[in-house]
Amino acid sequence: MTFNENLRAIINQKKSCLSIGLDVDMELIPGFLLDFEAPILEFNKSIINATSDVAAAYKMNLSFYEAYSVQGWRSLKKTLELIPDSVMKIADGKRGDVAHSAKKYRDAFFKELSFDAVTLNPYLGYDSVAPFLEDESKGAFIVCLTSNESATEFQFFSDGKTLLFERIAEKAAEWNINDNCGLVVGATKANHLKRIREIAPNLPILIPGVGAQGGDLKASVENARDSRGGGFLINSSRAILYHSDDFEFAQKSRTAAWKLRDEINQYL
Amino acid sequence: MTFNENLRAIINQKKSCLSIGLDVDMELIPGFLLDFEAPILEFNKSIINATSDVAAAYKMNLSFYEAYSVQGWRSLKKTLELIPDSVMKIADGKRGDVAHSAKKYRDAFFKELSFDAVTLNPYLGYDSVAPFLEDESKGAFIVCLTSNESATEFQFFSDGKTLLFERIAEKAAEWNINDNCGLVVGATKANHLKRIREIAPNLPILIPGVGAQGGDLKASVENARDSRGGGFLINSSRAILYHSDDFEFAQKSRTAAWKLRDEINQYL
Repeated sequence: MTFNENLRAIINQKKSCLSIGLDVDMELIPGFLLDFEAPILEFNKSIINATSDVAAAYKMNLSFYEAYSVQGWRSLKKTLELIPDSVMKIADGKRGDVAHSAKKYRDAFFKELSFDAVTLNPYLGYDSVAPFLEDESKGAFIVCLTSNESATEFQFFSDGKTLLFERIAEKAAEWNINDNCGLVVGATKANHLKRIREIAPNLPILIPGVGAQGGDLKASVENARDSRGGGFLINSSRAILYHSDDFEFAQKSRTAAWKLRDEINQYL
Repeated sequence: MTFNENLRAIINQKKSCLSIGLDVDMELIPGFLLDFEAPILEFNKSIINATSDVAAAYKMNLSFYEAYSVQGWRSLKKTLELIPDSVMKIADGKRGDVAHSAKKYRDAFFKELSFDAVTLNPYLGYDSVAPFLEDESKGAFIVCLTSNESATEFQFFSDGKTLLFERIAEKAAEWNINDNCGLVVGATKANHLKRIREIAPNLPILIPGVGAQGGDLKASVENARDSRGGGFLINSSRAILYHSDDFEFAQKSRTAAWKLRDEINQYL
């Protein structure tokens, strides 16, 4: 089964396009967890127990783990072991390097760690992406258009007809030979999602930026859905994770996750 | 002292533009090191002892450490502790993410780890780079033009007047407000280095791709040097690191390092 088929099957089975961003900030988790030896891991364990039935994917932005160095990397590894197979595990590292380094990153995420997919920065071109696409059961979401203010600086660079992010979407569609390539498009650029969906009708789109970053959920869903009414993940991190400082924190995250899942489905 | 001033001072003092890439592959190091608990760390210790007087910088491509997961990250941290202040420590991770993630990466490399500089992928624009440039004593080399075959796919995207990599060089020159911004330009694109040097006359240029990747050393040096006759680092990894499987391996790396340092100076 290819990564894209598997992702679609999970989304259909759970009726959920929700990705939960396990971007854990030690300063935002409930204070009582700081007494544990590995607070991030304890936090993740509770969140995973409370939300693995509603989440189609967990996305870990690797910066949040690398910020805690060796301990962070250990928490990352152990967190992955807690996630059931019914949820996709996405390493959001936006890596991009020449082929021999790309192969090392691939081994890091797909062999040493048990991620199902990665996010990749396409600036170095196809040979930096190819190692991640060899195994059809593993996926790669290509960073196409991002949610930050400076995104337009290079992503909107134009040859007179095509903007750079459109060219990248075209290329990613070409790279999807093994049905395991996707795109990352920030929710704050929902108006451009429509165009990207035209360029790449069959690619799953990972959409961060809803919630704290101010993206428009309704427009994102309407523009991202494909001809089969799905084919995308809406990722939310802070708006799901941090609701209270007490022992009920994970239960409140569960409530927030189901609410967002239902809201997405309402716009489908 | 700014990062760029400090780098120039080290280069001048040592009369060396050599960066050694500590990209350590467990399959290529002498077999007897595999009996140690941390073979990569043992290898690095020997190489650092043998070359820290001739190297202006050590560059670690992070993929080689992440490929060994928690143990790799621990070796990275301990390797940094062995490097004297007279050598710049560059984290070659080509990261690039939205600001709140970029700040986490910055903390990972500049606070949790003791790197002096990073390499960054500019695709997300200024706000993904800015956190790394706040502290003038820390540096950021912006990936401009790479040594791989697919580099032309997006880096040569043109608006009719300017190629994307040229636009990136222009922007990096603007971002150099704190005198701590540089560029990464692959040695296989030495003919384009001249143009990049014109666009960014004052930025230090980090040049990988000499040796195993087939870059032209003479052309790289001649096109990269600035008006003061320096302002660049030539990085070599495999051609320095792997010379023998015996106890003399580090001594042979030292010989190779001095040879390359002298060859660079000959073209200056």
